[in-house]
Amino acid sequence: MQPIQAVTWSDDGDGVRILDQRLLPEREVYRVLRSVDEVCEAINTLAVRGAPAIGIAAAMGLVLSIPTGSRGNLAIVLADADGRLRGTRPTAVNLARALDRAMEAGLRHRDDAAGMRVALRDEATKILEEDRAMCRRIGEYGATLIADGARVLTHCNTGALATGGIGTALAAVYVAVESGKRVEVYADETRPLLQGSRLTAWELQRARIPVTVLADGAAASLLRDGEVDLCIVGADRIAANGDVANKVGTYPLAIAACRHSVPFYVAAPTSTFDPATPRGDEILIEQRSAEELRRVLGAQTAPANVPVYNPAFDVTPAELISAIVSDRGIHRPPYDFSERAA
Amino acid sequence: MQPIQAVTWSDDGDGVRILDQRLLPEREVYRVLRSVDEVCEAINTLAVRGAPAIGIAAAMGLVLSIPTGSRGNLAIVLADADGRLRGTRPTAVNLARALDRAMEAGLRHRDDAAGMRVALRDEATKILEEDRAMCRRIGEYGATLIADGARVLTHCNTGALATGGIGTALAAVYVAVESGKRVEVYADETRPLLQGSRLTAWELQRARIPVTVLADGAAASLLRDGEVDLCIVGADRIAANGDVANKVGTYPLAIAACRHSVPFYVAAPTSTFDPATPRGDEILIEQRSAEELRRVLGAQTAPANVPVYNPAFDVTPAELISAIVSDRGIHRPPYDFSERAA
Repeated sequence: MQPIQAVTWSDDGDGVRILDQRLLPEREVYRVLRSVDEVCEAINTLAVRGAPAIGIAAAMGLVLSIPTGSRGNLAIVLADADGRLRGTRPTAVNLARALDRAMEAGLRHRDDAAGMRVALRDEATKILEEDRAMCRRIGEYGATLIADGARVLTHCNTGALATGGIGTALAAVYVAVESGKRVEVYADETRPLLQGSRLTAWELQRARIPVTVLADGAAASLLRDGEVDLCIVGADRIAANGDVANKVGTYPLAIAACRHSVPFYVAAPTSTFDPATPRGDEILIEQRSAEELRRVLGAQTAPANVPVYNPAFDVTPAELISAIVSDRGIHRPPYDFSERAA
Repeated sequence: MQPIQAVTWSDDGDGVRILDQRLLPEREVYRVLRSVDEVCEAINTLAVRGAPAIGIAAAMGLVLSIPTGSRGNLAIVLADADGRLRGTRPTAVNLARALDRAMEAGLRHRDDAAGMRVALRDEATKILEEDRAMCRRIGEYGATLIADGARVLTHCNTGALATGGIGTALAAVYVAVESGKRVEVYADETRPLLQGSRLTAWELQRARIPVTVLADGAAASLLRDGEVDLCIVGADRIAANGDVANKVGTYPLAIAACRHSVPFYVAAPTSTFDPATPRGDEILIEQRSAEELRRVLGAQTAPANVPVYNPAFDVTPAELISAIVSDRGIHRPPYDFSERAA
């Protein structure tokens, strides 16, 4: 069974079709977004999430701002839509990059609504297709690290739900399974936002790949008991020396994997490499809302005003990483990503 | 401010007064239990929890089975109550031990309801008082490890809510604060049952001790950033060689503390030492319900039928433990608890 498609064009081609991730894992509901406002709302409320998927949805959303046969100042209409889409998640680099590309393409047709729509649509489709191809390449390189019968531990969601294609770290699992290998996945639930239990478990079950959920604190026991053959996670940013910023909880997993001599892999697109940052300790870690720890899906789990330490990411030093898989190949230590052509 | 009392006699002396922990952290409600059935229900539904607190509540509950001035076969009445109380949490060693002691005292007065009540009440009071004294001693030894200004990281709930006194690992914090030291606590939320965020954070706030909650996966970041001076946790069982079984998530915390050279202490009563178990890998680890990972306080957090790995405990090897604090003193490695007089 194919992995799901988080974002695509609607069947009639005039809307953006998304899987509404707010309803997972309970219900699989697809929605067709028909306006810029609907796309903004979907991104804002995490109906669509994952850096690549957000960028794709936003680029597609720009098309919806130009009504067929409309006249008037198209550049102003487009710039307004761009501003609203860009403002949904101000720190998402993929979002800004995708909008930059689509805007450049669209603004070549300032006086021609039909031409602008075609140019915007083509560029958005290109962004989607490039993301799909990138996922596929990461998956193909990554799958070579996964033996038949392997038990794979992962953290957070790095699958089809987060991208336009089959994911990054999870792409390696999809390609391995596609090529006939038997693979079992252990998914950390990934507090505080539970992307592992809500999303990774759901999309793997749907693709008929065996998956078991565990509390983040239980992973070390699995590693100790020899139940895991390899760990593979994604990355939000990779420093020039190979240090990796990723979802909080990645670092303790890497420490435990190292203690038990289990290979620890990172899979991410080349666009994640940041040659301008020499080492991981120079990466600024965003603190997220205290409410994520005080409430879980609406239920109170801590005193209402208790102080909370809630970093979004942690930094795993390169020395704990067995290899980094990108769309350009498998990188082994010592890492040197100080040039973008890494 | 004094730590709360999880279990005591009611003011009129004819009931068992508990703090209903099911309502924490939202509401602080005390209930007076007037019958064996009410005590069983409170233990079954985790209104009272923590191995020592359960043992105390059950021993007190036996008194309620003997009505004042009752006649008939008192031994049968008592044995029936004992069976029901014992069945509430079949694997809890403290529960069985407390009931054994109370039964022995009560059965010396088979034909005298008043005498039996007095004997049962005296024994239950003795169990409570011994537990209080044990907590205090652990706290006094443990407090010597906590310097003025210390930032202490802990896991799960090992405080007043789990015992008849001021707790085990958390007792060290209470005594340190009582003696005038400034102490800040970081409390792991402790998935899956959230004892850290729901209970530890609540009781420390109530005692006006600064506490910050974090996801279990974020502790390694705090340790890396030098924000923690020491870790202190409880124990469910301690093997003869010093390996410690404790709430799942303890082991990865100990690995991370070791990597960052932060002292890692375990505090537990001598009754936790198990000389009959030579090493930690011989401790059988109970698997708990999959529902604990599939739902959090009622909200669905994973696919309904997803397989779950949910061990209640993990095992921390002695080599990662800087010292073990008991009611008899501070034990340093190499540990040898092969005699009960450890």
